[in-house]
Amino acid sequence: MRKVAVIGIGQTIVSEHWEKSLKELAGDAILNALLDAHINEFDSLFIGNMMSAPANQQQNIGAYIADWVGARGSESIRVESACSSGSAAFRAAVLAVASNEVDIAVAAGIEKMTDSPSAEITANLATAADADWEVSHGVSFVALNALLMQRYLHEYSWDHSNFAGFSINAHKNALNNPFARFKSALSEEQYVRSSVICDPITLMDASPIGDGAAAVILVPYNSIETHRNHKIISVAGSSAASDTIAVHSRKDPLWLSAAEQSAKQSYNQAGITERDIDLFEYHDAFTIMAALSLEACGFADRGKAPNLALEGELQLSGRIPVATMGGLKARGHPVGATGMYQIVEVIQQLRGEAGENQVKGAVFGMAQNIGGSGSNIITHVLTNEN
Amino acid sequence: MRKVAVIGIGQTIVSEHWEKSLKELAGDAILNALLDAHINEFDSLFIGNMMSAPANQQQNIGAYIADWVGARGSESIRVESACSSGSAAFRAAVLAVASNEVDIAVAAGIEKMTDSPSAEITANLATAADADWEVSHGVSFVALNALLMQRYLHEYSWDHSNFAGFSINAHKNALNNPFARFKSALSEEQYVRSSVICDPITLMDASPIGDGAAAVILVPYNSIETHRNHKIISVAGSSAASDTIAVHSRKDPLWLSAAEQSAKQSYNQAGITERDIDLFEYHDAFTIMAALSLEACGFADRGKAPNLALEGELQLSGRIPVATMGGLKARGHPVGATGMYQIVEVIQQLRGEAGENQVKGAVFGMAQNIGGSGSNIITHVLTNEN
Repeated sequence: MRKVAVIGIGQTIVSEHWEKSLKELAGDAILNALLDAHINEFDSLFIGNMMSAPANQQQNIGAYIADWVGARGSESIRVESACSSGSAAFRAAVLAVASNEVDIAVAAGIEKMTDSPSAEITANLATAADADWEVSHGVSFVALNALLMQRYLHEYSWDHSNFAGFSINAHKNALNNPFARFKSALSEEQYVRSSVICDPITLMDASPIGDGAAAVILVPYNSIETHRNHKIISVAGSSAASDTIAVHSRKDPLWLSAAEQSAKQSYNQAGITERDIDLFEYHDAFTIMAALSLEACGFADRGKAPNLALEGELQLSGRIPVATMGGLKARGHPVGATGMYQIVEVIQQLRGEAGENQVKGAVFGMAQNIGGSGSNIITHVLTNEN
Repeated sequence: MRKVAVIGIGQTIVSEHWEKSLKELAGDAILNALLDAHINEFDSLFIGNMMSAPANQQQNIGAYIADWVGARGSESIRVESACSSGSAAFRAAVLAVASNEVDIAVAAGIEKMTDSPSAEITANLATAADADWEVSHGVSFVALNALLMQRYLHEYSWDHSNFAGFSINAHKNALNNPFARFKSALSEEQYVRSSVICDPITLMDASPIGDGAAAVILVPYNSIETHRNHKIISVAGSSAASDTIAVHSRKDPLWLSAAEQSAKQSYNQAGITERDIDLFEYHDAFTIMAALSLEACGFADRGKAPNLALEGELQLSGRIPVATMGGLKARGHPVGATGMYQIVEVIQQLRGEAGENQVKGAVFGMAQNIGGSGSNIITHVLTNEN
């Protein structure tokens, strides 16, 4: 395939954007990415979004957003795979540029969720689970994750308090990210005293929803000289895999097989192993997902991920820095946009533009985006070593 | 780009499928396509669907359907661009195979609409229009098309009855299509006496919604020897373009600029002109869209498309056969699936498997799928000349 580079990034703060419409929010991220890349035209727009139909009464948002950003005429489609919609849009853009059919692509993730009442948001999020065999029985997304966490605590003899490190690390890193939803440190005491949402998951295990948009500009690597403004970042690995949509259908509910599969394929494409990954933007929608991701991707043995948090290995100076700009837990989780925030943050790190949170000497960064409770997982490895 | 071939097709009848769930319907089409291709595994699944969130309370349908068809683990995403979602999924699959990253892709369109009350369906369809500037003022999709038809009749001095030929031709061709929603001939008298839905659009100008699924299998052309079962069909042109989502923002509401742009790009890629197209599966959601498509693609001068219908040139033996298996008007319009039905029907024709409706000696077939009122248009040219 034709080698693909990313030459521009843009993002909005994750917040409650009452003052902006869906297209204005997307436009802010896309126009910033175009500005960052020093270009003003593109061929194709790939939008990751999960819930514009129920939340904003708007579909067909490719054309809707293309027109708003002054790209009337350009190809423009929406890609959806629940909470992994953002990285699905990025992968669609990578394949389009790799195919030789598209020369400049924009991948963007956008979600505007907070206009709806919270019961409606919970129902909209539940459309990512199995409508027939999970949701119709009353299970919500947090309940599915609570079942997994309960089983994990039982199976591997951990105490809930041992998960504190995941959330404390995320909140700490978000303090230096101007685009993060939460800018407040979290103490171990606050974590332990946090109210239970769905036993054993507490408020401090769960990521907050929000409104937000993030975007990048992709071009063929061999055209980079004409676009050069920053350190060159290229796509070293891109892979997507699936698992059963219903958690009860899995052979082993405590093993994210689609995370393992897509991570391994991405390592192979990049010609590396997990030991070469310098930072990992993982999908910590809940702390249990953080733990399961680390294990499936090879960073911890089965049942041992909490050790990484307890030993400080997830911090910026640790063995595998994660959630370096706050992760889903503290940067926030505007569902269909999250995968694009992860990509943008990896690029900030690989460019050396992560400020106070810079991971020194980072060469390979990984972003992994999870749709459903592990049913649709997309992994990308990016690098500044070309 | 790597040349792409289609080696399997499958479809279900367009109907009210009360007895089947969304995944069962999709599975029927996909499993038939795999059977037709004599394969049982694939790498990636691209699903075109518009309204599973509001109509079926199910998103994340890539993983949902991949699991059902026995492809657990495979990449699986949904692509949405309103009524052009089907061909957007096909184009995503074409780019994925062309990029060298995917070797066997499935593209499928699926829609299950008829479970909802009709007012809800109308509201769901309206999410393809501009929520802020069209729908919030009470305009429905048929109303937008009625405005266009009214203007067309006025501007070019046609009478409503002059549009009869589009619908009569579609109904005639559907008589021989076992997968069509309507199998009843339409007379000129029936057309003229049909009840008005939104002046000047009558029931017989409008395509019926429905439930349905259609699928194809794509592989690199150079791997075709190992898959050969039918006449080889390859993708000669693939292009997508956009226009404003709101009709009132267009420079000329009677000109489908995205149809012109994507058709011309497809002709160029195929190295042909519109005179080489042997059949055209156009997007006759309303008769006015049929007329505007023919003009934008170069088959009729501006304001002259009804002449083609009046002179019999759209029939199977005419200059440019259209809706050869019934089109949206009579095969039916299960919105997100329609684009894939068009692709499947072009392939039936190019393989010489269209039975009574065979266009003799067809070499180049075109499918054009319209999302919104012309805001997102995707054109494909396929051929059996390799």
